[in-house]
Amino acid sequence: MKHTLSVLVENKPGVLTRVAGLFARRGFNIDSLVVGQSEDPKLSRMTITIDGAEHPIDQVTKQLHKLINVVKIRDLDPDHTVARELALIKVNASSGTRSEIVQIAEIFQARVVDVDKRTLTIEMASSPGKLLALQEMLQPFGVIEIERTGTVAIARG
Amino acid sequence: MKHTLSVLVENKPGVLTRVAGLFARRGFNIDSLVVGQSEDPKLSRMTITIDGAEHPIDQVTKQLHKLINVVKIRDLDPDHTVARELALIKVNASSGTRSEIVQIAEIFQARVVDVDKRTLTIEMASSPGKLLALQEMLQPFGVIEIERTGTVAIARG
Repeated sequence: MKHTLSVLVENKPGVLTRVAGLFARRGFNIDSLVVGQSEDPKLSRMTITIDGAEHPIDQVTKQLHKLINVVKIRDLDPDHTVARELALIKVNASSGTRSEIVQIAEIFQARVVDVDKRTLTIEMASSPGKLLALQEMLQPFGVIEIERTGTVAIARG
Repeated sequence: MKHTLSVLVENKPGVLTRVAGLFARRGFNIDSLVVGQSEDPKLSRMTITIDGAEHPIDQVTKQLHKLINVVKIRDLDPDHTVARELALIKVNASSGTRSEIVQIAEIFQARVVDVDKRTLTIEMASSPGKLLALQEMLQPFGVIEIERTGTVAIARG
């Protein structure tokens, strides 16, 4: 099962290195790691997605707790979590294919954020699964570039 | 001036540690660092936002180029770049304030992704500046939690 850990850390240089180093040393294979600002300027929040079948989660959290800059760890329950990821996808688009691509974007509630004669750039914020579905729909047109943020998650209610 | 570096790296354990470690050792103060999947499963893409006034960019890129897992670095021109960030914001909302908050979200083209009796959770994908503006508008209601992904960017056209 996929686990999403929401980890509050002190906003200090070297914290990311320490957390990333811990995962690397232990051979923990992270699906995604996002570090961004939190509601408190002194703290950053890391959202770490990891496969619980591969790595026992209590072992991961135990190791994280040992790091001095880690303030709080929450293992989010997937049934009560809003998980979202942002992607920018640049795809080949000619006058012949542009309207079809725009239509696909609309179905996925994605937005066209840039257009030129030969390309379209689409922005989509959604669950990681839906992102993958959009990506597959766009593949036949020729995907030039993809930027994904990794997952951020927040407990419901 | 803010610089956005788009860095293709090999998708191997330890790469994030190496990049984060380089920045920490040199005292480079990163605004945000995002690592996510790219269009090639063997490669990840890091988007690093850094203040160019504080740290000469050519020095940063020179150091990055020395790392063995770094494949390609691009310094994106802000005038020709689509830069986006995703945020989830959970805010206090009672029956008295809910409709006002929903209206603010609509003005910012943000989406309400969760609601319960006492809170609303809003998702917004936009430029980092607009995100900050939404955050300020929601502050008086009582912001409970913010998750931000950091900036991803893609060159126009």
